[in-house]
Amino acid sequence: MTAISMGKLLNLSRLAGPDGRFRMLAVDQRASMRATLAKRAGKAEEDVTFLEMAKVKALLTKTLAPQATAILTDPVYGLPYSALSLPSRVGLLLAIEETGYEVEQEDFQERRTVLLEDWSVEKAKRAGANAIKLLVYYRFDLSPETKAHQESIVREVGEACAAFDLPFVLEVVSYPLGEGSADSPEYARRKPELVIANAREFSRPGYRVDLLKLEFPADLKYTEEFCHKAFDGKTREPVYSLEQVREFCRELDAAAAVPWVILSAGVGIREFLLQVELACEAGASGFLCGRAIWKDALELYPDLAAMEKFLNEEGVYNFQRANAASMRAVPWFAHRRFAEGIVPAGIGPDWYRTY
Amino acid sequence: MTAISMGKLLNLSRLAGPDGRFRMLAVDQRASMRATLAKRAGKAEEDVTFLEMAKVKALLTKTLAPQATAILTDPVYGLPYSALSLPSRVGLLLAIEETGYEVEQEDFQERRTVLLEDWSVEKAKRAGANAIKLLVYYRFDLSPETKAHQESIVREVGEACAAFDLPFVLEVVSYPLGEGSADSPEYARRKPELVIANAREFSRPGYRVDLLKLEFPADLKYTEEFCHKAFDGKTREPVYSLEQVREFCRELDAAAAVPWVILSAGVGIREFLLQVELACEAGASGFLCGRAIWKDALELYPDLAAMEKFLNEEGVYNFQRANAASMRAVPWFAHRRFAEGIVPAGIGPDWYRTY
Repeated sequence: MTAISMGKLLNLSRLAGPDGRFRMLAVDQRASMRATLAKRAGKAEEDVTFLEMAKVKALLTKTLAPQATAILTDPVYGLPYSALSLPSRVGLLLAIEETGYEVEQEDFQERRTVLLEDWSVEKAKRAGANAIKLLVYYRFDLSPETKAHQESIVREVGEACAAFDLPFVLEVVSYPLGEGSADSPEYARRKPELVIANAREFSRPGYRVDLLKLEFPADLKYTEEFCHKAFDGKTREPVYSLEQVREFCRELDAAAAVPWVILSAGVGIREFLLQVELACEAGASGFLCGRAIWKDALELYPDLAAMEKFLNEEGVYNFQRANAASMRAVPWFAHRRFAEGIVPAGIGPDWYRTY
Repeated sequence: MTAISMGKLLNLSRLAGPDGRFRMLAVDQRASMRATLAKRAGKAEEDVTFLEMAKVKALLTKTLAPQATAILTDPVYGLPYSALSLPSRVGLLLAIEETGYEVEQEDFQERRTVLLEDWSVEKAKRAGANAIKLLVYYRFDLSPETKAHQESIVREVGEACAAFDLPFVLEVVSYPLGEGSADSPEYARRKPELVIANAREFSRPGYRVDLLKLEFPADLKYTEEFCHKAFDGKTREPVYSLEQVREFCRELDAAAAVPWVILSAGVGIREFLLQVELACEAGASGFLCGRAIWKDALELYPDLAAMEKFLNEEGVYNFQRANAASMRAVPWFAHRRFAEGIVPAGIGPDWYRTY
């Protein structure tokens, strides 16, 4: 039997549906959302007000959260303004990191994560979060200094989550470093190795991660089958076949020693639905998805009424298709980590004394 | 607008259904359950084992919790052994007091509440509770010493709940003191005044109670309409009419300055259904009920299979009738305490910094 501490056990199950599958909505985007709103409203990013951001997040929450088993938001623009729109039956994940990343110098492209100042795991727990989400950018071939920095932040958050007995959801994202742009055959070729190595690294018990939020381990737009304008009308050169991608997904699942979900990274909805299907067939426990589901609604900004109509129609439609695409997801409690069964840690007559 | 701190706001809503009404199951009974199991198994109370208690609670939870919006259990026999049977969409209340009460001397019948040793609000919060429940016995005419003791425990728990930003559910129960037995015309006559005064006392802001769990403010078995064998085949003398009882319910609602639910105190199911109906019409926000729904199942102990069958049939039937009887309950957010509307405390761009 695998022992799970009570707070992690109860709160992890609150993120999933009764079937143990995660269908989670992300609205914790900050910098990318600000940029889009500025563009659509025809103004500078710094002129996008706090309330503009908060209102868009509240609208996304109100319209889409009822479709989700849990929602990931941020404590700055998100939670306080969306609290009254949160369905009581939907789990809550709160982001712990500052938006984006820092780079040390102009010509040094390695990304370093910074935790949100004046915010903490303790505050998130107190406010009612069911889980903490941390995003780190990572690749195994970073400089030792950047690796140490990123690993140390993950360990720090992992320890705090253990102290407050809250599930730790770690999102790991790779990025091109010398392979050209993110949309290039060089980076597409490199991606499986990077994503799989990331899953392996942060599955190590020392990080105390409970659920990994992982990238799809390939770029479907560079597959033989889908490189001919399939997803965005653009032709690209093929770097692998769909069958090879299925194998990357299986390798990713083998590397992830804890339950994992797939993230959307802003791809289009049709590409995301295929990613969900392939990831779940390989062993993912669902998805944690933002922009693939709702990004088209932002194109209607600042017409909030039009956005709301779009979200209630297209957004819900997208969500329901993603929910269906994840029907073969592995329930979190059926992950091989728990093959021997699950038991609350310390169970016995003295549980309440020693907890 | 009435400001509610984030943790209380989110967790209070997690105890209720999407409609803001509480349909809550209590399985935190300890001494009364032990006595019944001992009697049914034909042994002494001290021979009822820890696991026997734990298994019965797990069975009640598994069969009935799916009908509830939240479940109240204890951290001793209940939570550790029921955690894997808790539906993820059902809120969790944890008891904080030691079972029963203490009396100072043999001939001094005033009851004093004791908190469970080696347990705390901090532990309950960490373990994933959505609320703390404290039971206190109280009447306004107790000795100053007992009143001070009981009031001080309520204040202590109220402060701890505020510190960990968890809803505080206070159950207040009166008892006969010089009026003869609990089933006597003298006590029935006294009950409205006692219950209404209790609600008024613990509505005072200093106790920091978020939800009151109250007794029905009369004994329906002593009404003109129901004193002729209606509920338990026994004839009693009438002490009031049903119309007077409705008025007691309205007075109780007027005395409760916070949302309140009705408790069952082990009455039979038909009497309880009428209590729920009358209380909800007067302003209650639902119920928190144990024995009225499941006590008949204990008569089948130690035949656990027969108990499970009974709970799945009669228990679920009872629960669904109680759910229907509470359809006119006042959603907690529609209580007059929140007549001006609700807003998360400290809302603004600095919420996450100052929380």
